[in-house]
Amino acid sequence: MRPSGRTPDQMRGITIEPEFTRHAEGSCLVSFGDTRVLCTASIEEKVPPFMRGKGEGWITAEYGMLPRATHTRGSREAAKGKQSGRTQEIQRLIGRSLRSVVDLKALGERQITLDCDVIQADGGTRTASISGAWVALRIAVDKLMASGALKADPIVAQVAAVSCGIYQGTPVLDLDYPEDSAAEADANFVLTGDGKLAEVQATAEGATFDEEELLRLLRLARIGCGEIFAAQRKATGR
Amino acid sequence: MRPSGRTPDQMRGITIEPEFTRHAEGSCLVSFGDTRVLCTASIEEKVPPFMRGKGEGWITAEYGMLPRATHTRGSREAAKGKQSGRTQEIQRLIGRSLRSVVDLKALGERQITLDCDVIQADGGTRTASISGAWVALRIAVDKLMASGALKADPIVAQVAAVSCGIYQGTPVLDLDYPEDSAAEADANFVLTGDGKLAEVQATAEGATFDEEELLRLLRLARIGCGEIFAAQRKATGR
Amino acid sequence: MRPSGRTPDQMRGITIEPEFTRHAEGSCLVSFGDTRVLCTASIEEKVPPFMRGKGEGWITAEYGMLPRATHTRGSREAAKGKQSGRTQEIQRLIGRSLRSVVDLKALGERQITLDCDVIQADGGTRTASISGAWVALRIAVDKLMASGALKADPIVAQVAAVSCGIYQGTPVLDLDYPEDSAAEADANFVLTGDGKLAEVQATAEGATFDEEELLRLLRLARIGCGEIFAAQRKATGR
Amino acid sequence: MRPSGRTPDQMRGITIEPEFTRHAEGSCLVSFGDTRVLCTASIEEKVPPFMRGKGEGWITAEYGMLPRATHTRGSREAAKGKQSGRTQEIQRLIGRSLRSVVDLKALGERQITLDCDVIQADGGTRTASISGAWVALRIAVDKLMASGALKADPIVAQVAAVSCGIYQGTPVLDLDYPEDSAAEADANFVLTGDGKLAEVQATAEGATFDEEELLRLLRLARIGCGEIFAAQRKATGR
Amino acid sequence: MRPSGRTPDQMRGITIEPEFTRHAEGSCLVSFGDTRVLCTASIEEKVPPFMRGKGEGWITAEYGMLPRATHTRGSREAAKGKQSGRTQEIQRLIGRSLRSVVDLKALGERQITLDCDVIQADGGTRTASISGAWVALRIAVDKLMASGALKADPIVAQVAAVSCGIYQGTPVLDLDYPEDSAAEADANFVLTGDGKLAEVQATAEGATFDEEELLRLLRLARIGCGEIFAAQRKATGR
Amino acid sequence: MRPSGRTPDQMRGITIEPEFTRHAEGSCLVSFGDTRVLCTASIEEKVPPFMRGKGEGWITAEYGMLPRATHTRGSREAAKGKQSGRTQEIQRLIGRSLRSVVDLKALGERQITLDCDVIQADGGTRTASISGAWVALRIAVDKLMASGALKADPIVAQVAAVSCGIYQGTPVLDLDYPEDSAAEADANFVLTGDGKLAEVQATAEGATFDEEELLRLLRLARIGCGEIFAAQRKATGR
Repeated sequence: MRPSGRTPDQMRGITIEPEFTRHAEGSCLVSFGDTRVLCTASIEEKVPPFMRGKGEGWITAEYGMLPRATHTRGSREAAKGKQSGRTQEIQRLIGRSLRSVVDLKALGERQITLDCDVIQADGGTRTASISGAWVALRIAVDKLMASGALKADPIVAQVAAVSCGIYQGTPVLDLDYPEDSAAEADANFVLTGDGKLAEVQATAEGATFDEEELLRLLRLARIGCGEIFAAQRKATGR
Repeated sequence: MRPSGRTPDQMRGITIEPEFTRHAEGSCLVSFGDTRVLCTASIEEKVPPFMRGKGEGWITAEYGMLPRATHTRGSREAAKGKQSGRTQEIQRLIGRSLRSVVDLKALGERQITLDCDVIQADGGTRTASISGAWVALRIAVDKLMASGALKADPIVAQVAAVSCGIYQGTPVLDLDYPEDSAAEADANFVLTGDGKLAEVQATAEGATFDEEELLRLLRLARIGCGEIFAAQRKATGR
Repeated sequence: MRPSGRTPDQMRGITIEPEFTRHAEGSCLVSFGDTRVLCTASIEEKVPPFMRGKGEGWITAEYGMLPRATHTRGSREAAKGKQSGRTQEIQRLIGRSLRSVVDLKALGERQITLDCDVIQADGGTRTASISGAWVALRIAVDKLMASGALKADPIVAQVAAVSCGIYQGTPVLDLDYPEDSAAEADANFVLTGDGKLAEVQATAEGATFDEEELLRLLRLARIGCGEIFAAQRKATGR
Repeated sequence: MRPSGRTPDQMRGITIEPEFTRHAEGSCLVSFGDTRVLCTASIEEKVPPFMRGKGEGWITAEYGMLPRATHTRGSREAAKGKQSGRTQEIQRLIGRSLRSVVDLKALGERQITLDCDVIQADGGTRTASISGAWVALRIAVDKLMASGALKADPIVAQVAAVSCGIYQGTPVLDLDYPEDSAAEADANFVLTGDGKLAEVQATAEGATFDEEELLRLLRLARIGCGEIFAAQRKATGR
Repeated sequence: MRPSGRTPDQMRGITIEPEFTRHAEGSCLVSFGDTRVLCTASIEEKVPPFMRGKGEGWITAEYGMLPRATHTRGSREAAKGKQSGRTQEIQRLIGRSLRSVVDLKALGERQITLDCDVIQADGGTRTASISGAWVALRIAVDKLMASGALKADPIVAQVAAVSCGIYQGTPVLDLDYPEDSAAEADANFVLTGDGKLAEVQATAEGATFDEEELLRLLRLARIGCGEIFAAQRKATGR
Repeated sequence: MRPSGRTPDQMRGITIEPEFTRHAEGSCLVSFGDTRVLCTASIEEKVPPFMRGKGEGWITAEYGMLPRATHTRGSREAAKGKQSGRTQEIQRLIGRSLRSVVDLKALGERQITLDCDVIQADGGTRTASISGAWVALRIAVDKLMASGALKADPIVAQVAAVSCGIYQGTPVLDLDYPEDSAAEADANFVLTGDGKLAEVQATAEGATFDEEELLRLLRLARIGCGEIFAAQRKATGR
């Protein structure tokens, strides 16, 4: 029995509120149950130094967690003077995931930065971030296309992510915090709208796992991402 | 004529949404027009080293701005590895302002941290932060009293803040961003519910000012804080 | 009764020793009683990045305190690897104050950095810094004018600062350390030679204050700054 | 055709030189072809703060790359003043992988730190690090057992890792640098001696991949880890 | 011919003004010509962690240079967020030099920190620092003895330092800045009052040197330190 | 009697393994007994900002110690976020020493960085680093000459270094760790192949020393460097 009473293949409620803030070229507030992340897309008409002169664009991401997004207050990374390894790992994952569905050549020499800031955390903040970042990116790119700055659409597919895990011996979909902190193994899957894999990260927490379990988790992820893809389309009117 | 069409003594619309997040002991989302700040109060049952053994509590504050809260994206302080002088100045001001209405002895040996994170900025983020932080603090202290952890109320008054400035020669109330960036002088006033001053910070930006102007700005601030005090009472049911 | 035996409106002895060091374009050692600050002005024939191409100059300030300027040794900020919020707040205040009396266009595309280093502290280091920085700036600008690099004088007025406070219920002028650490409220006033205000920072320390008290403190500040202006003129031969 | 002329399921030559340095409780120099990593295990008779009082031990890892381990010199992280996101991600992976085969209760209240320093890099430094770290750990734990400090063996299995990827459309085993930098997708598998999975990290670099490809990469990883397990046993005399 | 017109074995004028500041237990302003360093000694009644429980005291030093102590303004180390290698090297040298003439057992479990801050630089700041630090230390220890906190004098000898160098082929004493920046070789000698060596640091700048030259520089240093010892005795009344 | 049983003027066994790594333009693994340092030379076809436009090259050095190179594990400087004063002092010394035997004009506008990383430490790591860095530099420069990038040899002499000290009253050559940590005085001498001195650093650790002792240590250093010069020539085929 899951703490939340959900069935093993049941997602939490997903809501995506587009255009949540007014300054960013694209933004949304994404909620996976009590996990809420503000995602914004910021366009700059130049690329970072390592990309200059290639005639390509770049997509990057930054991730943060408000100090009291969690049950007990965490220290503020800006005050500590550095980002944790966990933060850096997550923001690298978000950036890679979004780049996997963007044709950087078609984007042209501009950079889009996706900021994912966790307002409230209840497990799955990185997967909600990826899923919401796609919406912010989609809105920002739509504006570039509407303004004529872009002729062809550089986004080649949707991308979404969900965490699954083995909780008390059972593979379950979309771990919340009580499950996440007690799971024997957990896996984050980043899937694209056409059914391909952009990233798989499966980790033994208390017990190693086998190939069969990995595949069962992947099957659950396909169910969950299907729901997220629908919510993304609804939020962006596609 | 003000860019927003407001009269000189007209505040922007103020809304305070209490209990905006679920983990913090107290929280609210405060809006002064398009300026939106998430304020949370976190209680810890211990005080920082410099306060230990005095039988008193402590109130401190931290302030942050999401990278795309502003018109153009600012760099993330956690990524830069340090908080700007502006950030530190603001969080010191918030902490002092709230302490000015709290009886630290009555609070007992505990610390309450007020986190003020700007979701969207349009001028006046520090004054909105102080005004919202009082609501978050009030809610958190009410819980301590309801649970019996506190017998007497350590909060001795309301506290609120508003910015005023001289814009195109005219003293105006509650500067928004277009006014703030063009004002000849601006002043932040922190007032208490009983009509006293907790802090005055008046700064010549392009032109020095005189005593008469300072007093006219203070008079505007009294009008603005009156409205904020009402919104605070409404949000906290007092 | 004040610990020093001074009357409420009595300044400490002020001395300003111009040209205290030989390398800086302008310098002085300013003393407000036992508070001693070395102020230097350094001219660079270029402006910081955010000012480039505007045809204007820039005035900035840095502030430091020698580790044993105080009663007990403080840790060295260079060794700790960062400047405290207090330090940053003070150096921002010094820079703003000096800019309020300089016509940046008339200064031309050059930057003058005012370094204020506290050799010995007994309260009022920031106000002594502002008052001494003006002298260092005046001397440096005089050299630019003497050399023909500047035709018109970019300094439009004198600027000086003094702290006042409510000590044991009485408004007093020019707080020394024993008063500063026990004051119910304190205020720093930055005034210009023509009687205008460049900055007001009034803070409740233990008790909030009212408008009448603020005005009484301002009146004391006018007395004190009058004496400082005279000392500045004497030190610069104006 | 692979740049090295290897067949798709062919590992590079693996050598593990145990006891490469004299001060560490356990050490080895592990080579996967031209990739060479020095792994040391250091025992401390205390655990980090978050583990205190639980009656359990802890395994942690740190990773570094000598500046000229690579084709062009990279900047020294100690000189830059921080570890990159990549470094932190890798050292977290190494630590998790090793903990997945250690019974922390049986280890007792002590910490073993695994330092993995890359002397020369040619792809696969993180997988070589994990594989070598197990040898260093095994040697250190053997000493604890020989000395009587440990009665039961806390190491419950071997653990090894290898990278696989899709290179020019073909799944290949043990990517070297030319393959790694051109692969369409790559995956790091951390497997245990009893055939289970401790970690799977599969990433689309230029093209997303599908489930069938993931499984083919896993099959290659099983072949590669089989060879590494044999080399580990030979190096530790097990 | 030396730029200053001095003979090869001629020191600059040395002055040592004792008790230059009022808070430090010992202090002086030492001048070697235009090089001026403020030295303070601060006593703490505890030792750093690595010395605890040994029944011994500790002497440490910190060194700083005001930004405009030099011909062109240098950046402030506190603002840059780290001390340069040069600064650390110098403060380590000052600490070692002073410890070489102190019986740490006789000092008891207390630490004395010597802060050497360069007000104005014209070559030889580190040697002036060592020479002045001894005076500050002597004054502070005299107070400990006068108060009865110390029975026996822990200072076993005077210590002083001077720089010598080969300038245009000639060994010269007490390099000023024009000489220092053009010398073929320079050497800092730290000598004790009883004629022994505490530290020798000789460095080829443009040309290597030989044993004979090293000895000639040492002979010059003995002359210079003789003068410094006399100035130290005068300043401390010994 | 020395702990190692060596006679006072006996070096530890010296081995220099050239071309220890494949990516660096020059490299070697140098051993002085159990002290082992990996030295690499990296050529960049540009010079640092302060050397630009002078038509000269630059030689710089960086030094690091693997965390478990020592008896007990030291913390990783990259993780601590800064290099210690000791590290910076050593890398400055290595750079100066190598520059003392290079004609920077003849090197042309390029920089060679010498990385010295201590794999295992048993005293004398800085002197082994200097001695090995010369070999790495020699190999790198030979490649520049072989390729025709350099016509004339910019290396004007060999350079080597050794530590000597006074151990239990006796001057001894090439201190190992047990001697180094107990020596009354120690000295590092950097000598050139033509018998000149590039650097002398002699330090009193527990007792000051006299001129006669300094000369005896220098005599020992000449013996030791003679052996190192021979090993350098053998390793580079000169």
